[in-house]
Amino acid sequence: MSLTNRQYRLAARPVGMSKPSDWNFSSETVGEAAQGQVLVKVLQISLDPAMRGWMNEGKSYIAPVGIGEVMRAGGVGRVIASKNPQFAVGDHVAGGFGVQEYCLVDPANAAQIALSKIDLRLGTPAQWLNALGMPGMTGYFGLLEVGQPKPGETVVVSGAAGAVGQTAGQVAKIKGCRAVGIAGGRDKCDFVVKELHYDACIDYKTGSVKDGLKEHCPKGVDIYFDNVGGDILDTVLTRINRKARIVICGAISQYNNTTPVKGPDNYLSLLVNRARMEGMVVFDWAARYSEAIGEISQWMRAGRFVSKEDIVEGIEAFPEALNQLFSGGNFGKLVLQVAKD
Amino acid sequence: MSLTNRQYRLAARPVGMSKPSDWNFSSETVGEAAQGQVLVKVLQISLDPAMRGWMNEGKSYIAPVGIGEVMRAGGVGRVIASKNPQFAVGDHVAGGFGVQEYCLVDPANAAQIALSKIDLRLGTPAQWLNALGMPGMTGYFGLLEVGQPKPGETVVVSGAAGAVGQTAGQVAKIKGCRAVGIAGGRDKCDFVVKELHYDACIDYKTGSVKDGLKEHCPKGVDIYFDNVGGDILDTVLTRINRKARIVICGAISQYNNTTPVKGPDNYLSLLVNRARMEGMVVFDWAARYSEAIGEISQWMRAGRFVSKEDIVEGIEAFPEALNQLFSGGNFGKLVLQVAKD
Repeated sequence: MSLTNRQYRLAARPVGMSKPSDWNFSSETVGEAAQGQVLVKVLQISLDPAMRGWMNEGKSYIAPVGIGEVMRAGGVGRVIASKNPQFAVGDHVAGGFGVQEYCLVDPANAAQIALSKIDLRLGTPAQWLNALGMPGMTGYFGLLEVGQPKPGETVVVSGAAGAVGQTAGQVAKIKGCRAVGIAGGRDKCDFVVKELHYDACIDYKTGSVKDGLKEHCPKGVDIYFDNVGGDILDTVLTRINRKARIVICGAISQYNNTTPVKGPDNYLSLLVNRARMEGMVVFDWAARYSEAIGEISQWMRAGRFVSKEDIVEGIEAFPEALNQLFSGGNFGKLVLQVAKD
Repeated sequence: MSLTNRQYRLAARPVGMSKPSDWNFSSETVGEAAQGQVLVKVLQISLDPAMRGWMNEGKSYIAPVGIGEVMRAGGVGRVIASKNPQFAVGDHVAGGFGVQEYCLVDPANAAQIALSKIDLRLGTPAQWLNALGMPGMTGYFGLLEVGQPKPGETVVVSGAAGAVGQTAGQVAKIKGCRAVGIAGGRDKCDFVVKELHYDACIDYKTGSVKDGLKEHCPKGVDIYFDNVGGDILDTVLTRINRKARIVICGAISQYNNTTPVKGPDNYLSLLVNRARMEGMVVFDWAARYSEAIGEISQWMRAGRFVSKEDIVEGIEAFPEALNQLFSGGNFGKLVLQVAKD
């Protein structure tokens, strides 16, 4: 039986927000698994703000996706054929399968795809793309290792309802900090407080972030976990405490810019407050993912931590769903469901 | 005998570069030293870029100088009268004496003035305002404690010919790093290389800083000690290595701005490179000044370190000399000589 694999390939480098013509929705026949190969049926695809950066030319922490290539994306799937003794048919796996329905993992591209088995007793496939996946690892190591929280400190997280934000805020709470989110819209702020158990959430769309910080961070900001950059970063800089740590995890507000990125004009607050701004890339912590997965899954079982996903159905929905990340449409980690099983 | 004390008092908060009308050059009669007091004849006054910040209103790491107050400044002097058993007539002392010819140090203002004896066997009075004073302490602790240099790394220092820059670069060399300065003008760059023994110096006035960094930092930038901010900070951000450290010590280029400070638009290089940008204020290291003074004075005696001052004569020269710091007129630490002895 020959399978058809539908794929989203990058057709053009977007200017600003990506549009339908930036994609080529193609299909090809899936080959048989040869010696050493593993054929994965993709079940769910992770949609992440960082993907927008991979579509641009230029030096970054990872090479850009080439024109004509299948769009890079993390995912979870099920092994449907294997000529590799380390993986059996039926195993659930995670890896960088791309935006497609099937992925043939070859020993030659194994390192790039980083195929690994996942244990569905620890979490659902979608949770393996969220709290137990890259966003969870990012929030966990970014907050704990770069942010260095101490009990009683105030931690502010932008993009609080998103995938990384939900982990950063919940880990902050577990470590005895006050967690204050920033998110867009009243509903999303309610979600952040009621479902993710932040202490408070500031709605940047309808109110003043500055006033919100004054109200909800009466003792100032000790850690700012920044997913958005732009004006919000600049505003938080005016409220930081001495020896504050700003974790630069992303800059969602800037990823679709057609003008140059805007830097934080208030950066001299770092000087006045002897504070630190530090960038992080989750891949640096790969050797310790299992430690974080163990701890987060324990917290989940104990009911102290929730992994919230926003699941969109069908691979055809990919281009529109990706843009939702930047228009602020998602509540929780955005996942594209490609197949049920 | 009653002494006349001439003083520069802040008459108005400057807009941009300070102008003569921002100052009131007044005089008053010096009082007798009463119980617990020490009367200091000021010999030399330290002129520092930070002074421009103290003239502005608004929250910073230190309160602004009030209108009508004697301008704050560090200095060295000689005790000419003392009713304090800790200080004898003839002692040489350092402290925040202000821009004036005499300073009566009272137990009530002693903490603010931070009166301390200086040992002229370790350095000249001017050197006590430079390598053995605040700029030296700033360069020493900023580079070593915030920058954390490792042998073989490349350290870039802006304002390299200035007071802080000369210490930062020389300490970098002593610690086995490659030291590359940035300064304005060919003569100043020659000074930085020939007299301060940097490996190279980039002239930002006549050349491209980007090209200079490519040429002189072939292995990228591991530490950037930033005294200037602005476009130079932005350019260096494009050349930093993974895990680079940027020490935010000052932003001379921005201190006279009449428009808002410009932030580093390339700050996302911190993310890509997992790099850190951290502010420092020298006062935090006060408990360890003696350690640094001991080490720097040993290096000076051993001929491994030079303390270069640019001495301007006469208290009347103060307003013009201060502005020289921002027009880039000084070679080495700028000192105002008020009296010979």
